[in-house]
Amino acid sequence: MAEQKATNVTWHHGEVSREDRYRLLRQKGATIWFTGLSGSGKSTIAVALETALFNQSKLSYRLDGDNVRLGINKNLGFSEQDRKENIRRIGEIAKLFGDAGVISLSSFISPYRADRDEVRRLHEAAKLPFVEVHVDCSLAVAEKRDPKGLYKKARAGEIKNFTGIDDPYEAPANPELHLHTDRMTLEQEVDIIIDYLKKHGIIGARHFTRAEDASEAIAAAR
Amino acid sequence: MAEQKATNVTWHHGEVSREDRYRLLRQKGATIWFTGLSGSGKSTIAVALETALFNQSKLSYRLDGDNVRLGINKNLGFSEQDRKENIRRIGEIAKLFGDAGVISLSSFISPYRADRDEVRRLHEAAKLPFVEVHVDCSLAVAEKRDPKGLYKKARAGEIKNFTGIDDPYEAPANPELHLHTDRMTLEQEVDIIIDYLKKHGIIGARHFTRAEDASEAIAAAR
Repeated sequence: MAEQKATNVTWHHGEVSREDRYRLLRQKGATIWFTGLSGSGKSTIAVALETALFNQSKLSYRLDGDNVRLGINKNLGFSEQDRKENIRRIGEIAKLFGDAGVISLSSFISPYRADRDEVRRLHEAAKLPFVEVHVDCSLAVAEKRDPKGLYKKARAGEIKNFTGIDDPYEAPANPELHLHTDRMTLEQEVDIIIDYLKKHGIIGARHFTRAEDASEAIAAAR
Repeated sequence: MAEQKATNVTWHHGEVSREDRYRLLRQKGATIWFTGLSGSGKSTIAVALETALFNQSKLSYRLDGDNVRLGINKNLGFSEQDRKENIRRIGEIAKLFGDAGVISLSSFISPYRADRDEVRRLHEAAKLPFVEVHVDCSLAVAEKRDPKGLYKKARAGEIKNFTGIDDPYEAPANPELHLHTDRMTLEQEVDIIIDYLKKHGIIGARHFTRAEDASEAIAAAR
């Protein structure tokens, strides 16, 4: 039957390895870690990137406030310790997704360099790609956008310790990618990330394409 | 080019949905939650099931002590509160994996009914399949197996609050599957779970098979 042959997955006897999952998914697991001010464009880029990856048959998954802060991290507040623990847990979850073969897209302000570096170290120890993307725009631009009305509240004193207003944003010293969202289009931003993923063999490597499926199916049908 | 056409993934403009990911992976996300005494066979079944799923080109991911207790939950001990939080977090992670389209396989004793039921409710609220599998064998058999030497330590008083010895195991009242590992073969156990997943459309539904790929590739090549 063509159905059984049209796959590049080898029959497996021992434990399934990370590399097995990579072959199955025709991609490598990785963490794309967006960091930047509220309103800088992290979520917008993550959503567009997710679509671009899907259109190339790549599996990604977004981690954001909606599914993390309201879920696993709902027992965390905004104290220094809790913000640190928030990022630590997200880093650990991203690591699990990467090990599973999924490209996770994390969109959190993650303002402190030490916390991001800890997530980076986690990934290095696990031999998983960590792509820190500085989503950069000026505070003035971010505050003008103010998509959630949070800057307004912070200026009015209704929110305390708001990044950029009364809490620092520590920009990455050496991010894998640096996107200036106040002078780039969304398409350009997504293209830069896709190019990075291809260049580093996370997507698009020859043995991950569907070409093998197609040719095997054709061969089986003949 | 056959390569582009040999896919059943539709070009996508808006946000990528859970259903999109299901189509991409040709499976539905789900949580298989193994519960049972230490030594009952949870991990053994999870490893064998992972292999069986992989051999059908299905993506699963195991959550166990190795990657959870040493990772995201490394700041939890074994107090009642911490054991509860341990299971809560694992449940939330399993939910994220299910939403991503992955079949997660959780192997934790998870002795308390209330904690497991909370995970079940999380999944119900998120409209994700939750398959509670009671991995059942007598304490005598589990203690005789004692793969990690833990019962011996518990009997010697070196480990306190050990499930089955000086802490209760609350068996599921109504699990989706009940496997008696002291009188079934591993093959039988895996088959029962695979059958359940097929019967409930999590794997193997007609529109998830690779047949479409094959026929599209053939059509494109003609």
